[in-house]
Amino acid sequence: MASSHAPQPLLKDELDIVIPTIRSLDFLEMWRPFFQPYHLIIVQDGDPSKTIRVPEGFDYELYNRNDINRILGPRAACISFKDSACRCFGYMVSKKKYIYTIDDDCFVAKDPSGKDINALEQHIKNLLSPSTPFFFNTLYDPYRDGADFVRGYPFSLREGVPTAVSHGLWLNIPDYDAPTQLVKPLERNNRYVDAILTIPKGTLFPMCGMNLAFDRELIGPAMYFGLMGDGQPIGRYDDMWAGWCTKVITDHLGLGVKTGLPYIWHSKASNPFVNLKKEYNGIFWQEELIPFFQSTSLPKEANTVQKCYLELAKQVRAKLGKVDGYFNKLADSMVTWIEAWDQLNPPKGGVATANGALKK
Amino acid sequence: MASSHAPQPLLKDELDIVIPTIRSLDFLEMWRPFFQPYHLIIVQDGDPSKTIRVPEGFDYELYNRNDINRILGPRAACISFKDSACRCFGYMVSKKKYIYTIDDDCFVAKDPSGKDINALEQHIKNLLSPSTPFFFNTLYDPYRDGADFVRGYPFSLREGVPTAVSHGLWLNIPDYDAPTQLVKPLERNNRYVDAILTIPKGTLFPMCGMNLAFDRELIGPAMYFGLMGDGQPIGRYDDMWAGWCTKVITDHLGLGVKTGLPYIWHSKASNPFVNLKKEYNGIFWQEELIPFFQSTSLPKEANTVQKCYLELAKQVRAKLGKVDGYFNKLADSMVTWIEAWDQLNPPKGGVATANGALKK
Repeated sequence: MASSHAPQPLLKDELDIVIPTIRSLDFLEMWRPFFQPYHLIIVQDGDPSKTIRVPEGFDYELYNRNDINRILGPRAACISFKDSACRCFGYMVSKKKYIYTIDDDCFVAKDPSGKDINALEQHIKNLLSPSTPFFFNTLYDPYRDGADFVRGYPFSLREGVPTAVSHGLWLNIPDYDAPTQLVKPLERNNRYVDAILTIPKGTLFPMCGMNLAFDRELIGPAMYFGLMGDGQPIGRYDDMWAGWCTKVITDHLGLGVKTGLPYIWHSKASNPFVNLKKEYNGIFWQEELIPFFQSTSLPKEANTVQKCYLELAKQVRAKLGKVDGYFNKLADSMVTWIEAWDQLNPPKGGVATANGALKK
Repeated sequence: MASSHAPQPLLKDELDIVIPTIRSLDFLEMWRPFFQPYHLIIVQDGDPSKTIRVPEGFDYELYNRNDINRILGPRAACISFKDSACRCFGYMVSKKKYIYTIDDDCFVAKDPSGKDINALEQHIKNLLSPSTPFFFNTLYDPYRDGADFVRGYPFSLREGVPTAVSHGLWLNIPDYDAPTQLVKPLERNNRYVDAILTIPKGTLFPMCGMNLAFDRELIGPAMYFGLMGDGQPIGRYDDMWAGWCTKVITDHLGLGVKTGLPYIWHSKASNPFVNLKKEYNGIFWQEELIPFFQSTSLPKEANTVQKCYLELAKQVRAKLGKVDGYFNKLADSMVTWIEAWDQLNPPKGGVATANGALKK
């Protein structure tokens, strides 16, 4: 590419960009200088007979509901329909080490100097530098240029731990729940906070799937976005669910989660009335879910993400089934998700069966 | 005051500014628009016969070593000499609800728009708004203008908890330890991070005393800066020690600690060779101190800061005495500190005995 914006395409052959969508992907035009070197996995939600137009020049594969059903068979039931939670099928079908996922209403943001932000490049930097979950560094990410560990930071902890997740933020429309959207319809996020930080061990956070990168090899099987949308009593908690499970598991396995830069420009608030209907149950349930995840402990034998996740599914059934029958169904789906993950990502020497998707 | 910088002097009669020093306080000239409405408590370190010049127009009281010895009698031994740790005498002798403490080599910083930062005003805002230690908010302090709790933040936690500590940061010379100073002599902190955040429950941090505010009524008796300097095997861990004790106690009592804005301009790096000599033992010891504080738990009966602190002193003696005999002495001093605190701050109805200091 000749654009002056052209980044060094870091990890070009090791990262897939996963985009869930129901419409043509015109938003990619704006991302062209940054995304074109990478492979896209498009997960088409809703009516499979609709055609999703992808701007020319992008390298992509596209899966619609028929593809998902064909590839996963009965296990396809664990992938949500009519909800952007379907994106997690893309994580499963990827063969790359890293995933970046972004919503199709997210555009390139500008930094305070007016320069276009290469969100993907910043995510990659976040993932390639360690995290510091065991002690807080007051000058934020100590591995950034111009920063370091401050006085009083134990030297034995300065190597850090591998970073599994990089959670990016949003300028313009903030990621608010329906009640907050209703109360503050005009609020915009104009504050560019020039920081990246590790979310400390033992602390949960609300992980948003709009602008998110992760190391699939380190944490992929925990990135299940749950059962949302069509036929389910809840929506808009897909990324939250994945975030809570992921954080408990990264804490257990000694991995790190970073949040902060990069920003994307979130163009449009979704309809708060529709959102309230989707969130209604989640708003109640999360009051029980947070104490559950805060008190969860995983056994020592759970030494892989898969084992951790299956153990978590067991605890969800045992402790959340009484909150609502939905959680029994979700626990079943968590098990199915792991089976499907292992089906598409067999231990080394096996053969993956994901093929036949509509390839470009 | 007629200055256009003149702030609304928030909490004018409820806050003391505590400054430890060995020299004339010319640095106050720059702070005049912000500090002049407040009362200063100056703790003179080193030779008591030296005269500390205070720029005209400031309302202050000044304590030198002779004053400390006279007021506290034998208990004065708990106050460090020839070390800025002596500042904690000022916390004890104050009768105000809030304390702001600042080093005399810290000047007014500018925000990215070039405006002088009223550090004290920002600290007061931090202290007067709640903290959120139980769950991380990805848009940082949810109580700031233009921010709120993001989607997925449990509603039951949105009231927050009272903020006990506001930890501010430093532009220009970062607060590095001697080894880092030696390795990166030219590093300057130029990154203005426009954020305030709550340090989550269960997470320790390196609290720097250079630019620090706290609610004396909520946490004062935990703000003991330990035994440093003259006759002690350690220096430059005074604020760290106070920070670790404070964080364990605020976590136990359900109080909050914030870090981030405001910045001050830290003008001059201290000598790294001198610092190394002071820090040498601390660098080893902190490797044992952090696990100690991370695993400390306080009993339910410890329902006041004093009770928590005495319990902590007991655990320091029991568990850190074997690291070095110094910690037995420190544990004794922690008890003496509480006795001295209660002497100067008797339960309501009693009479405080701090008087006779050199008043303006």
